[in-house]
Amino acid sequence: MQRKKTIGILGGMGPLATCDLYTKIIANTHASTDQEHIHVIIDSNTAIPDRTAALLEGGEDPRPEMIRSARMLEREGAAAIVMPCNTAHGFYDDIQSAVQIPVLHMIRLTGEELKKRGITKAGLMATTGTIRTGIYQQSIPDIELILPDLDEQAALMDMTYNGVKAGVKDYDGSKVQATAERMQALGAQVIILGCTELPLAKEMYHLQFDTIDPTLVLAQAAVEFAEQ
Amino acid sequence: MQRKKTIGILGGMGPLATCDLYTKIIANTHASTDQEHIHVIIDSNTAIPDRTAALLEGGEDPRPEMIRSARMLEREGAAAIVMPCNTAHGFYDDIQSAVQIPVLHMIRLTGEELKKRGITKAGLMATTGTIRTGIYQQSIPDIELILPDLDEQAALMDMTYNGVKAGVKDYDGSKVQATAERMQALGAQVIILGCTELPLAKEMYHLQFDTIDPTLVLAQAAVEFAEQ
Repeated sequence: MQRKKTIGILGGMGPLATCDLYTKIIANTHASTDQEHIHVIIDSNTAIPDRTAALLEGGEDPRPEMIRSARMLEREGAAAIVMPCNTAHGFYDDIQSAVQIPVLHMIRLTGEELKKRGITKAGLMATTGTIRTGIYQQSIPDIELILPDLDEQAALMDMTYNGVKAGVKDYDGSKVQATAERMQALGAQVIILGCTELPLAKEMYHLQFDTIDPTLVLAQAAVEFAEQ
Repeated sequence: MQRKKTIGILGGMGPLATCDLYTKIIANTHASTDQEHIHVIIDSNTAIPDRTAALLEGGEDPRPEMIRSARMLEREGAAAIVMPCNTAHGFYDDIQSAVQIPVLHMIRLTGEELKKRGITKAGLMATTGTIRTGIYQQSIPDIELILPDLDEQAALMDMTYNGVKAGVKDYDGSKVQATAERMQALGAQVIILGCTELPLAKEMYHLQFDTIDPTLVLAQAAVEFAEQ
Protein backbone atom coordinates (compact mmCIF):
# COMPACT_ATOMS: atom_id res chain seq x y z
CA MET A 1 0.00 0.00 0.00
CA GLN A 2 1.38 3.38 -0.97
CA ARG A 3 1.23 5.83 1.92
CA LYS A 4 -0.91 8.89 1.36
CA LYS A 5 0.77 12.29 1.64
CA THR A 6 0.88 13.95 5.07
CA ILE A 7 -1.36 16.98 5.64
CA GLY A 8 -0.54 19.76 8.10
CA ILE A 9 -3.35 21.69 9.78
CA LEU A 10 -2.42 25.20 10.89
CA GLY A 11 -5.09 25.37 13.54
CA GLY A 12 -6.27 26.86 16.79
CA MET A 13 -8.27 29.54 14.95
CA GLY A 14 -10.38 28.40 16.76
CA PRO A 15 -9.85 24.98 18.32
CA LEU A 16 -13.36 23.65 17.59
CA ALA A 17 -13.07 24.65 13.93
CA THR A 18 -9.75 22.79 13.81
CA CYS A 19 -11.44 19.66 15.11
CA ASP A 20 -14.32 20.15 12.68
CA LEU A 21 -11.92 20.24 9.71
CA TYR A 22 -10.07 17.15 10.91
CA THR A 23 -13.35 15.26 11.41
CA LYS A 24 -14.38 16.17 7.85
CA ILE A 25 -10.99 15.02 6.49
CA ILE A 26 -11.46 11.64 8.23
CA ALA A 27 -15.05 11.29 6.97
CA ASN A 28 -13.99 12.00 3.38
CA THR A 29 -10.95 9.69 3.29
CA HIS A 30 -11.16 6.34 1.51
CA ALA A 31 -10.08 4.13 4.40
CA SER A 32 -11.33 1.15 6.34
CA THR A 33 -8.39 0.76 8.77
CA ASP A 34 -6.40 3.25 10.84
CA GLN A 35 -3.38 2.72 8.60
CA GLU A 36 -5.26 3.69 5.42
CA HIS A 37 -6.10 7.09 6.89
CA ILE A 38 -4.07 10.19 6.13
CA HIS A 39 -1.20 11.08 8.45
CA VAL A 40 -2.25 14.50 9.75
CA ILE A 41 -0.14 16.82 11.90
CA ILE A 42 -2.11 19.52 13.68
CA ASP A 43 -0.69 22.57 15.38
CA SER A 44 -3.63 23.98 17.27
CA ASN A 45 -1.65 27.08 18.12
CA THR A 46 -3.83 29.16 20.38
CA ALA A 47 -1.01 31.69 20.82
CA ILE A 48 -2.06 33.09 17.42
CA PRO A 49 -3.73 36.46 18.12
CA ASP A 50 -7.27 37.18 16.93
CA ARG A 51 -7.27 37.71 13.14
CA THR A 52 -10.25 40.06 12.98
CA ALA A 53 -8.82 42.31 15.71
CA ALA A 54 -5.53 42.51 13.79
CA LEU A 55 -7.19 43.37 10.48
CA LEU A 56 -9.62 45.97 11.84
CA GLU A 57 -8.39 47.39 15.12
CA GLY A 58 -4.60 47.32 14.89
CA GLY A 59 -4.56 44.27 17.18
CA GLU A 60 -1.44 42.14 17.59
CA ASP A 61 -0.05 40.78 14.30
CA PRO A 62 -0.92 37.05 14.01
CA ARG A 63 1.66 36.37 11.28
CA PRO A 64 4.71 35.52 13.43
CA GLU A 65 2.86 32.73 15.25
CA MET A 66 1.13 31.55 12.05
CA ILE A 67 4.50 31.35 10.27
CA ARG A 68 6.03 29.54 13.25
CA SER A 69 3.28 26.91 12.99
CA ALA A 70 3.52 26.64 9.20
CA ARG A 71 7.28 26.04 9.38
CA MET A 72 6.85 23.46 12.14
CA LEU A 73 4.34 21.54 9.98
CA GLU A 74 6.69 21.69 6.99
CA ARG A 75 9.72 20.67 9.08
CA GLU A 76 7.86 17.66 10.51
CA GLY A 77 6.85 16.29 7.13
CA ALA A 78 3.60 17.88 5.92
CA ALA A 79 3.28 17.89 2.11
CA ALA A 80 0.63 20.65 2.18
CA ILE A 81 -0.90 22.98 4.74
CA VAL A 82 -4.55 23.84 5.35
CA MET A 83 -5.81 26.72 7.52
CA PRO A 84 -9.31 26.23 8.97
CA CYS A 85 -9.95 29.96 9.43
CA ASN A 86 -11.40 32.19 6.73
CA THR A 87 -10.14 35.43 8.27
CA ALA A 88 -6.60 33.98 8.42
CA HIS A 89 -6.66 33.94 4.62
CA GLY A 90 -6.23 37.72 4.82
CA PHE A 91 -2.60 36.81 5.62
CA TYR A 92 -2.41 33.99 3.05
CA ASP A 93 0.42 35.42 0.93
CA ASP A 94 2.74 35.86 3.92
CA ILE A 95 2.14 32.30 5.12
CA GLN A 96 2.57 30.78 1.66
CA SER A 97 5.81 32.76 1.19
CA ALA A 98 7.23 31.40 4.44
CA VAL A 99 7.16 27.73 3.35
CA GLN A 100 8.07 25.66 0.28
CA ILE A 101 4.99 23.40 0.42
CA PRO A 102 1.58 24.52 -0.92
CA VAL A 103 -0.97 26.15 1.38
CA LEU A 104 -4.40 25.15 0.02
CA HIS A 105 -6.56 28.28 -0.31
CA MET A 106 -9.94 27.60 1.27
CA ILE A 107 -11.68 30.58 -0.28
CA ARG A 108 -10.50 30.09 -3.87
CA LEU A 109 -11.46 26.41 -3.58
CA THR A 110 -14.92 27.46 -2.39
CA GLY A 111 -15.26 29.74 -5.42
CA GLU A 112 -14.39 26.83 -7.72
CA GLU A 113 -16.98 24.64 -6.01
CA LEU A 114 -19.67 27.33 -6.36
CA LYS A 115 -18.94 27.57 -10.09
CA LYS A 116 -19.15 23.78 -10.44
CA ARG A 117 -22.60 23.92 -8.86
CA GLY A 118 -23.72 26.65 -11.27
CA ILE A 119 -24.20 29.22 -8.50
CA THR A 120 -24.09 32.85 -9.62
CA LYS A 121 -25.50 34.60 -6.52
CA ALA A 122 -24.71 33.71 -2.91
CA GLY A 123 -25.13 35.16 0.56
CA LEU A 124 -21.90 35.61 2.52
CA MET A 125 -21.75 35.17 6.28
CA ALA A 126 -18.32 35.85 7.72
CA THR A 127 -16.45 37.82 10.35
CA THR A 128 -16.23 41.58 9.92
CA GLY A 129 -12.50 41.09 9.26
CA THR A 130 -13.15 38.70 6.40
CA ILE A 131 -15.80 40.92 4.85
CA ARG A 132 -13.98 44.25 5.23
CA THR A 133 -10.73 42.95 3.76
CA GLY A 134 -12.70 41.76 0.72
CA ILE A 135 -11.02 38.32 0.65
CA TYR A 136 -14.15 36.63 -0.68
CA GLN A 137 -15.01 39.45 -3.07
CA GLN A 138 -11.49 39.32 -4.59
CA SER A 139 -11.04 35.53 -4.54
CA ILE A 140 -14.35 34.72 -6.23
CA PRO A 141 -15.14 37.71 -8.46
CA ASP A 142 -17.54 35.75 -10.71
CA ILE A 143 -20.11 35.19 -7.97
CA GLU A 144 -22.47 37.99 -6.95
CA LEU A 145 -22.30 38.23 -3.17
CA ILE A 146 -25.06 39.48 -0.88
CA LEU A 147 -23.53 40.84 2.34
CA PRO A 148 -25.10 41.26 5.78
CA ASP A 149 -26.14 44.76 6.81
CA LEU A 150 -24.63 46.34 9.93
CA ASP A 151 -27.13 44.94 12.42
CA GLU A 152 -26.97 41.50 10.85
CA GLN A 153 -23.18 41.61 10.94
CA ALA A 154 -23.21 42.48 14.63
CA ALA A 155 -25.53 39.52 15.31
CA LEU A 156 -23.26 37.19 13.33
CA MET A 157 -20.18 38.30 15.23
CA ASP A 158 -21.99 37.93 18.52
CA MET A 159 -22.99 34.34 17.67
CA THR A 160 -19.42 33.54 16.57
CA TYR A 161 -17.66 34.98 19.63
CA ASN A 162 -20.25 34.80 22.43
CA GLY A 163 -21.87 31.60 21.13
CA VAL A 164 -19.49 29.12 19.46
CA LYS A 165 -16.07 30.36 20.59
CA ALA A 166 -17.39 30.78 24.13
CA GLY A 167 -18.81 27.23 24.08
CA VAL A 168 -22.41 28.34 24.75
CA LYS A 169 -24.78 25.49 23.86
CA ASP A 170 -28.17 27.25 23.98
CA TYR A 171 -27.39 30.50 22.14
CA ASP A 172 -30.39 32.06 20.33
CA GLY A 173 -29.53 32.02 16.60
CA SER A 174 -32.83 33.47 15.33
CA LYS A 175 -31.28 36.76 14.10
CA VAL A 176 -28.85 34.82 11.92
CA GLN A 177 -31.68 32.63 10.65
CA ALA A 178 -33.55 35.81 9.64
CA THR A 179 -30.43 37.12 7.87
CA ALA A 180 -30.26 33.96 5.77
CA GLU A 181 -33.93 34.30 4.86
CA ARG A 182 -33.46 37.93 3.78
CA MET A 183 -30.50 36.91 1.58
CA GLN A 184 -32.52 34.11 0.00
CA ALA A 185 -35.39 36.53 -0.69
CA LEU A 186 -32.86 38.68 -2.58
CA GLY A 187 -31.92 35.72 -4.78
CA ALA A 188 -29.07 34.02 -2.89
CA GLN A 189 -28.99 30.41 -4.09
CA VAL A 190 -26.86 29.37 -1.12
CA ILE A 191 -25.32 30.97 1.94
CA ILE A 192 -21.52 30.74 2.21
CA LEU A 193 -20.60 29.79 5.80
CA GLY A 194 -17.50 31.99 5.49
CA CYS A 195 -16.29 31.61 9.07
CA THR A 196 -15.20 28.20 10.34
CA GLU A 197 -17.37 28.60 13.44
CA LEU A 198 -20.52 28.89 11.31
CA PRO A 199 -20.88 25.21 10.28
CA LEU A 200 -20.65 24.47 14.00
CA ALA A 201 -23.17 27.20 14.86
CA LYS A 202 -25.59 25.95 12.20
CA GLU A 203 -25.62 22.52 13.83
CA MET A 204 -25.44 23.66 17.48
CA TYR A 205 -28.22 26.25 17.13
CA HIS A 206 -30.36 24.34 14.58
CA LEU A 207 -30.27 26.94 11.81
CA GLN A 208 -32.09 25.94 8.61
CA PHE A 209 -30.92 27.16 5.20
CA ASP A 210 -29.00 25.94 2.13
CA THR A 211 -25.30 26.45 2.53
CA ILE A 212 -21.87 25.82 1.16
CA ASP A 213 -19.36 24.91 3.85
CA PRO A 214 -15.81 26.05 2.99
CA THR A 215 -14.44 23.79 5.78
CA LEU A 216 -15.92 20.78 3.96
CA VAL A 217 -14.61 22.03 0.60
CA LEU A 218 -11.14 22.37 2.16
CA ALA A 219 -11.34 18.91 3.75
CA GLN A 220 -12.23 17.37 0.38
CA ALA A 221 -9.35 19.21 -1.32
CA ALA A 222 -6.92 18.05 1.37
CA VAL A 223 -8.01 14.43 0.92
CA GLU A 224 -7.71 14.71 -2.86
CA PHE A 225 -4.20 16.16 -2.50
CA ALA A 226 -3.13 13.44 -0.05
CA GLU A 227 -4.53 10.58 -2.12
CA GLN A 228 -3.05 11.73 -5.46
CA MET B 1 -2.61 36.10 31.04
CA GLN B 2 -0.26 33.23 31.76
CA ARG B 3 -0.17 30.77 28.87
CA LYS B 4 -1.32 27.25 29.67
CA LYS B 5 1.13 24.40 29.09
CA THR B 6 1.20 22.79 25.66
CA ILE B 7 -0.23 19.26 25.34
CA GLY B 8 0.93 16.75 22.73
CA ILE B 9 -1.48 14.10 21.44
CA LEU B 10 0.17 10.94 20.14
CA GLY B 11 -2.72 10.02 17.89
CA GLY B 12 -3.90 8.21 14.79
CA MET B 13 -4.83 5.14 16.86
CA GLY B 14 -7.41 5.64 15.38
CA PRO B 15 -8.03 9.06 13.85
CA LEU B 16 -11.63 9.42 15.09
CA ALA B 17 -10.57 8.60 18.66
CA THR B 18 -7.87 11.28 18.34
CA CYS B 19 -10.50 13.82 17.34
CA ASP B 20 -12.77 12.64 20.15
CA LEU B 21 -10.03 13.24 22.75
CA TYR B 22 -9.26 16.69 21.37
CA THR B 23 -12.96 17.63 21.38
CA LYS B 24 -13.17 16.55 25.02
CA ILE B 25 -10.06 18.58 25.91
CA ILE B 26 -11.64 21.67 24.32
CA ALA B 27 -14.98 21.09 26.08
CA ASN B 28 -13.26 20.76 29.47
CA THR B 29 -10.97 23.80 29.15
CA HIS B 30 -11.80 27.01 31.01
CA ALA B 31 -11.76 29.37 28.03
CA SER B 32 -14.02 31.88 26.34
CA THR B 33 -11.66 32.99 23.54
CA ASP B 34 -9.39 31.07 21.14
CA GLN B 35 -6.34 32.42 22.96
CA GLU B 36 -7.42 31.05 26.35
CA HIS B 37 -7.54 27.52 24.95
CA ILE B 38 -4.67 25.07 25.38
CA HIS B 39 -2.02 24.94 22.67
CA VAL B 40 -2.30 21.34 21.45
CA ILE B 41 0.01 19.62 18.98
CA ILE B 42 -1.42 16.45 17.45
CA ASP B 43 0.51 13.87 15.51
CA SER B 44 -2.21 11.68 14.02
CA ASN B 45 0.39 9.20 12.83
CA THR B 46 -1.47 6.58 10.86
CA ALA B 47 1.81 4.88 9.97
CA ILE B 48 1.68 3.33 13.46
CA PRO B 49 0.87 -0.38 12.93
CA ASP B 50 -2.16 -1.99 14.59
CA ARG B 51 -1.48 -2.44 18.34
CA THR B 52 -3.69 -5.49 18.87
CA ALA B 53 -2.12 -7.33 15.92
CA ALA B 54 1.35 -6.60 17.34
CA LEU B 55 0.46 -7.83 20.84
CA LEU B 56 -1.37 -11.00 19.77
CA GLU B 57 -0.29 -12.09 16.31
CA GLY B 58 3.33 -11.04 16.02
CA GLY B 59 2.26 -8.12 13.79
CA GLU B 60 4.62 -5.25 13.03
CA ASP B 61 6.04 -3.51 16.11
CA PRO B 62 4.29 -0.15 16.59
CA ARG B 63 6.95 1.24 18.95
CA PRO B 64 9.34 2.82 16.41
CA GLU B 65 6.57 5.01 14.93
CA MET B 66 5.08 5.74 18.35
CA ILE B 67 8.47 6.86 19.64
CA ARG B 68 9.05 8.95 16.51
CA SER B 69 5.76 10.78 17.21
CA ALA B 70 6.45 11.16 20.94
CA ARG B 71 9.85 12.72 20.23
CA MET B 72 8.38 15.05 17.64
CA LEU B 73 5.78 16.28 20.15
CA GLU B 74 8.50 16.82 22.78
CA ARG B 75 10.83 18.57 20.31
CA GLU B 76 8.05 20.95 19.20
CA GLY B 77 7.19 22.07 22.72
CA ALA B 78 4.69 19.69 24.35
CA ALA B 79 4.95 19.65 28.17
CA ALA B 80 3.13 16.31 28.42
CA ILE B 81 1.91 13.60 26.06
CA VAL B 82 -1.43 11.80 25.95
CA MET B 83 -2.18 8.65 23.92
CA PRO B 84 -5.86 8.18 23.00
CA CYS B 85 -5.55 4.39 22.55
CA ASN B 86 -5.95 1.91 25.39
CA THR B 87 -4.12 -0.90 23.62
CA ALA B 88 -1.15 1.42 22.98
CA HIS B 89 -0.67 1.51 26.76
CA GLY B 90 0.69 -2.03 26.41
CA PHE B 91 3.81 -0.21 25.14
CA TYR B 92 3.62 2.60 27.72
CA ASP B 93 7.00 2.01 29.40
CA ASP B 94 8.89 2.15 26.10
CA ILE B 95 7.21 5.40 25.07
CA GLN B 96 7.71 7.04 28.47
CA SER B 97 11.40 6.00 28.43
CA ALA B 98 11.92 7.63 25.03
CA VAL B 99 11.04 11.17 26.19
CA GLN B 100 11.80 13.47 29.15
CA ILE B 101 8.25 14.82 29.49
CA PRO B 102 5.49 12.87 31.27
CA VAL B 103 3.15 10.59 29.33
CA LEU B 104 -0.19 10.67 31.18
CA HIS B 105 -1.38 7.07 31.75
CA MET B 106 -5.00 6.82 30.68
CA ILE B 107 -5.67 3.51 32.39
CA ARG B 108 -4.15 4.35 35.79
CA LEU B 109 -6.08 7.64 35.71
CA THR B 110 -9.28 5.70 35.00
CA GLY B 111 -8.58 3.46 37.99
CA GLU B 112 -8.18 6.53 40.22
CA GLU B 113 -11.47 7.93 38.93
CA LEU B 114 -13.28 4.63 39.60
CA LYS B 115 -11.99 4.65 43.19
CA LYS B 116 -13.12 8.25 43.64
CA ARG B 117 -16.61 7.19 42.55
CA GLY B 118 -16.60 4.31 45.03
CA ILE B 119 -16.79 1.66 42.31
CA THR B 120 -15.58 -1.81 43.34
CA LYS B 121 -16.88 -3.92 40.43
CA ALA B 122 -16.89 -2.91 36.76
CA GLY B 123 -17.40 -4.48 33.34
CA LEU B 124 -14.48 -4.08 30.94
CA MET B 125 -14.99 -3.69 27.22
CA ALA B 126 -11.73 -3.46 25.29
CA THR B 127 -9.82 -4.92 22.39
CA THR B 128 -8.56 -8.48 22.70
CA GLY B 129 -5.02 -7.02 22.82
CA THR B 130 -5.87 -4.82 25.79
CA ILE B 131 -7.61 -7.64 27.66
CA ARG B 132 -5.05 -10.38 26.95
CA THR B 133 -2.07 -8.24 27.98
CA GLY B 134 -3.83 -7.56 31.27
CA ILE B 135 -3.14 -3.81 31.19
CA TYR B 136 -6.37 -2.98 33.00
CA GLN B 137 -6.10 -5.89 35.42
CA GLN B 138 -2.57 -4.81 36.43
CA SER B 139 -3.14 -1.04 36.40
CA ILE B 140 -6.29 -1.11 38.56
CA PRO B 141 -5.90 -4.16 40.81
CA ASP B 142 -8.39 -2.86 43.43
CA ILE B 143 -11.39 -3.05 41.10
CA GLU B 144 -13.04 -6.39 40.35
CA LEU B 145 -13.36 -6.63 36.57
CA ILE B 146 -15.99 -8.62 34.68
CA LEU B 147 -14.63 -9.56 31.25
CA PRO B 148 -16.51 -10.43 28.05
CA ASP B 149 -16.74 -14.11 27.09
CA LEU B 150 -15.29 -15.29 23.76
CA ASP B 151 -18.41 -14.64 21.66
CA GLU B 152 -18.96 -11.25 23.29
CA GLN B 153 -15.32 -10.35 22.68
CA ALA B 154 -15.64 -11.26 18.99
CA ALA B 155 -18.73 -9.03 18.70
CA LEU B 156 -16.91 -6.15 20.41
CA MET B 157 -13.93 -6.44 18.06
CA ASP B 158 -16.24 -6.63 15.06
CA MET B 159 -18.00 -3.41 16.13
CA THR B 160 -14.65 -1.67 16.72
CA TYR B 161 -13.04 -2.65 13.42
CA ASN B 162 -15.96 -3.18 11.02
CA GLY B 163 -18.16 -0.52 12.61
CA VAL B 164 -16.30 2.52 13.98
CA LYS B 165 -12.86 2.23 12.34
CA ALA B 166 -14.53 1.40 9.01
CA GLY B 167 -16.79 4.45 9.35
CA VAL B 168 -20.04 2.42 9.17
CA LYS B 169 -22.92 4.57 10.45
CA ASP B 170 -25.71 1.97 10.77
CA TYR B 171 -23.86 -0.92 12.41
CA ASP B 172 -26.05 -3.18 14.60
CA GLY B 173 -24.71 -2.88 18.16
CA SER B 174 -27.30 -5.13 19.85
CA LYS B 175 -24.78 -7.86 20.78
CA VAL B 176 -22.65 -5.32 22.64
CA GLN B 177 -25.76 -3.94 24.33
CA ALA B 178 -26.56 -7.49 25.53
CA THR B 179 -22.99 -7.89 26.82
CA ALA B 180 -23.36 -4.77 28.94
CA GLU B 181 -26.65 -6.04 30.36
CA ARG B 182 -25.10 -9.41 31.28
CA MET B 183 -22.22 -7.61 33.05
CA GLN B 184 -24.66 -5.41 34.95
CA ALA B 185 -26.66 -8.49 36.02
CA LEU B 186 -23.40 -9.86 37.46
CA GLY B 187 -22.97 -6.72 39.57
CA ALA B 188 -20.96 -4.37 37.35
CA GLN B 189 -21.66 -0.84 38.62
CA VAL B 190 -20.33 0.68 35.40
CA ILE B 191 -18.87 -0.51 32.10
CA ILE B 192 -15.36 0.70 31.31
CA LEU B 193 -15.23 1.81 27.66
CA GLY B 194 -11.65 0.53 27.46
CA CYS B 195 -11.11 1.13 23.77
CA THR B 196 -11.14 4.69 22.42
CA GLU B 197 -13.55 3.67 19.65
CA LEU B 198 -16.18 2.61 22.21
CA PRO B 199 -17.34 6.08 23.35
CA LEU B 200 -17.85 6.79 19.64
CA ALA B 201 -19.65 3.47 19.10
CA LYS B 202 -21.90 4.10 22.10
CA GLU B 203 -23.06 7.38 20.55
CA MET B 204 -23.14 6.25 16.91
CA TYR B 205 -25.05 3.03 17.59
CA HIS B 206 -27.23 4.36 20.45
CA LEU B 207 -26.06 1.91 23.13
CA GLN B 208 -27.61 2.47 26.57
CA PHE B 209 -25.70 1.64 29.74
CA ASP B 210 -23.75 3.35 32.54
CA THR B 211 -20.12 3.83 31.61
CA ILE B 212 -16.83 5.37 32.50
CA ASP B 213 -15.06 6.87 29.50
CA PRO B 214 -11.25 6.74 29.83
CA THR B 215 -10.94 9.23 26.94
CA LEU B 216 -12.88 11.77 29.01
CA VAL B 217 -10.82 10.97 32.12
CA LEU B 218 -7.64 11.53 30.07
CA ALA B 219 -8.98 14.79 28.60
CA GLN B 220 -9.76 16.11 32.09
CA ALA B 221 -6.28 15.11 33.33
CA ALA B 222 -4.65 16.84 30.33
CA VAL B 223 -6.59 20.04 31.01
CA GLU B 224 -5.69 19.92 34.71
CA PHE B 225 -2.01 19.44 33.81
CA ALA B 226 -2.04 22.31 31.30
CA GLU B 227 -3.85 24.74 33.60
CA GLN B 228 -1.65 24.07 36.66
